[in-house]
Amino acid sequence: MNPRPDNRSVLILAGGRGERFWPWSRPERPKQLLPLARGGASLLAVTLERALRLAPRERILILTARDLVEAVRRECPGIAVVGEPVARNTAPAIGAAAAWFAGRGSGAFAVLPSDHLIDDVDAFVTDAERACDLAERERVLLTFGIPAANPETNFGYIQRGARVAERIFRVARFTEKPARARAEAYVAGGQHYWNSGMFAWRPEVFLDALAAARPDMAGPLRALPAQGDERAFERALEDVFPALEAISVDYAVLEHAPNTLVIEASFDWDDLGSWGAWARRQPRDERGNVLFGDAVAVDCERCIVVGEGGTAAALGLKDMVVVHVNGSTLACRIEESDRVRRVTEAVRQRSAR
Amino acid sequence: MNPRPDNRSVLILAGGRGERFWPWSRPERPKQLLPLARGGASLLAVTLERALRLAPRERILILTARDLVEAVRRECPGIAVVGEPVARNTAPAIGAAAAWFAGRGSGAFAVLPSDHLIDDVDAFVTDAERACDLAERERVLLTFGIPAANPETNFGYIQRGARVAERIFRVARFTEKPARARAEAYVAGGQHYWNSGMFAWRPEVFLDALAAARPDMAGPLRALPAQGDERAFERALEDVFPALEAISVDYAVLEHAPNTLVIEASFDWDDLGSWGAWARRQPRDERGNVLFGDAVAVDCERCIVVGEGGTAAALGLKDMVVVHVNGSTLACRIEESDRVRRVTEAVRQRSAR
Repeated sequence: MNPRPDNRSVLILAGGRGERFWPWSRPERPKQLLPLARGGASLLAVTLERALRLAPRERILILTARDLVEAVRRECPGIAVVGEPVARNTAPAIGAAAAWFAGRGSGAFAVLPSDHLIDDVDAFVTDAERACDLAERERVLLTFGIPAANPETNFGYIQRGARVAERIFRVARFTEKPARARAEAYVAGGQHYWNSGMFAWRPEVFLDALAAARPDMAGPLRALPAQGDERAFERALEDVFPALEAISVDYAVLEHAPNTLVIEASFDWDDLGSWGAWARRQPRDERGNVLFGDAVAVDCERCIVVGEGGTAAALGLKDMVVVHVNGSTLACRIEESDRVRRVTEAVRQRSAR
Repeated sequence: MNPRPDNRSVLILAGGRGERFWPWSRPERPKQLLPLARGGASLLAVTLERALRLAPRERILILTARDLVEAVRRECPGIAVVGEPVARNTAPAIGAAAAWFAGRGSGAFAVLPSDHLIDDVDAFVTDAERACDLAERERVLLTFGIPAANPETNFGYIQRGARVAERIFRVARFTEKPARARAEAYVAGGQHYWNSGMFAWRPEVFLDALAAARPDMAGPLRALPAQGDERAFERALEDVFPALEAISVDYAVLEHAPNTLVIEASFDWDDLGSWGAWARRQPRDERGNVLFGDAVAVDCERCIVVGEGGTAAALGLKDMVVVHVNGSTLACRIEESDRVRRVTEAVRQRSAR
C-alpha cells in the first residue's frame, strides 16, 4: 500500500437533530452531542477520533447547524466548524464541503455522519483507507455498505452489482426504507447492504457528478470561496444555501451517477436509532433492566429507566422505556421506541397551538 | 331538631404524608395540600369548607406536622393550627385535641381527616349534625361507617351490631385491612362498613374512654394547657408527645370502649388512595385518557398522563400511569398505582446510601 497522502481529508456531518432520543435529545443538544458512546463520550467525539485516524487535524471539516456551532466547537476544539444557515440535507452540505476541500488542495475526503457507533475502529480505518486509495486513483463515488443483518425498515438499502475488487461492487440500485417483506427478502438474498451514509471521493469528482445530475446546485456551490476562514465560508453559504433544494446525496447524485461503487464494510456499525438500540449496548441488572442516572426500577424486567436532573421510577413494568431527562418524561414500550418522533411532533403541535 | 349549640367544634387531622401520590406528593406537600378536589382546590381546603358547615371558624382546630404548619395556615387563614412535634398517629392527636377543646368549653367535636373527598356535602352535614346531636346527648363514641361498595383491601372495616336508631348501630368489631376473600365476604354480608376515620364525641367522653383504655396516654394529655394560643399548646406538646406511643384511635380506644357506635353514612366518600382513584373523577379524552397539565398521549388508551413543570409523554400505552411532577417521573400500570409506596421506599433507600 502506498503511504497515505498528506492531503487526505474528512467531512463530518453534524447537523442532524436526532429526535428519536427525545427527551434526551433536544434541538439544542441533538443525538450526536449526547453521551451515547462508551464511557460517556459523545457520538461526535468518537467520530472525530475515527476521523483523526484518516486525516490530520487541519484537514477535517465539520458541518453543522448555525445554532450548534458553539457546542460542536466545544466538543471538537481546534477543528474547522462551519455552520449552515439553513438545513438542506446531505447533497448541498457535501457539495459545499467539496468546494471547501477543492479550494484547499485536498485529495480524497471521507464523509462521516456524526451520530453512528463503530466499535472496531481498526477495521473501519482499514476499509476507509482502502476506499480513499481507490478514490484517489479512480474517478469513482464510493459508498460504505453494511451487510444487512436483519430486516430494518428504517434504513436505506444498496443493492450491489458487478464485482470490481475484493468487497467492492458496482451499485445496482438504492432503495429507501423498504416495507418489512421487502427488507426480509433483501436480507435473505444477500445482495443488499444498509446504506451507512458514509462515503469517499475526490472533491472535483463529486462536484462533476453533482454538475451532471444537478447543475443548478453545482454552479453556486463551485463558486464558494476557495480561501478564507470558516466565517467567510459561512457568509458565502448564507447567499447560496437558502435557494438550494433540501435533498439527500443519494437521491440527488448517487442514484444517477454511473461511477458509484459500494465497499462492503468489514466493521460493525450501529446507527443507535432508538432508545432500544442504545440499551442493547448498556450493562443490565440481574433482571435485565438498564438503569442510567437517577433511576429506580421496582419489580421491573428488561426495562430502560433513565433519570437525568430528576428521579425516574418504574414500578412493575416489563419491556418499557421510562425516561426523565431535561425536565420531560417519555414512556413507551421498547419495541416502539423508534416511533418517538410521533411524540416530538405531538409536542411541537401542542406548543404551536 | 334542636338549634345547633354554638360550642360545637371540629378537629381536622392534616398531618399525613400521603405518599401514594408520589411524585406529586412530597413530604413538604403531602396529599391533603395537592389540588385533587374539584376545580383544583386542595383536599384540605374542601375539608375546611365542610367543617365550616358544622362549626364556627373559631371552633375549628387543625392538627398537622410541625413542618407543615405554615403551608396549612396559608391554605386555611384564620383557623387555629397546631403543629405536632413528632407524628404519633390518631390516638394521641385526638386526645390532645380533646384537651384543647375541653379547655375551651366545647360541646361535641367532629374529627375529619383532611385528605378524603365527599361530593354530597349536604348529606354529610345532615349526618354529622345528627352524630353530634347524639354525642351531646349521650356518652357515646360515634364512628362514621361507609357502606362497603366493593372489597377494598386497603381499608379498615367496622362490623355493625345491634341497631340503636335509624342508621345507627353498636359496633361489633373493627377489622384492619382484610384479605381479599374476607373483604368479599364483608361486602356480600352487608353488615360491614368502611372505617372512614371520621368521628364525633364530646371532649370529656373521649378523654374518659382514653383514660380507661390507655391511662398512660390520658394523664399527660389531660394536663395540656386549657388556655393560651397555639404556640403555647405546641410547646406543651413538645414535652408530652415524644413519649407517647404512635397508635391509631381505633386500636387504642374504640376497640375497647363499650360505648362505640357506628353511623351509616348517607353521603358518598372517596379516600383518593391512588392515582387510579384520582383519575376516576377526572374528565377523559375520546380514548379514555386522563391528561392533566403538560401531558401528551400518542396512540394511548385509558392512560393517566400528568405533567407539571415539564412535559409528560406516553406513546402507544394502555392502562398506564405516567406522571412527571416536581422534577421526578413515575410510570406504572394503573391497577398497581396503590403500590407506589414501594417506589418511595426505594427512592429513600437510594438517598440513604
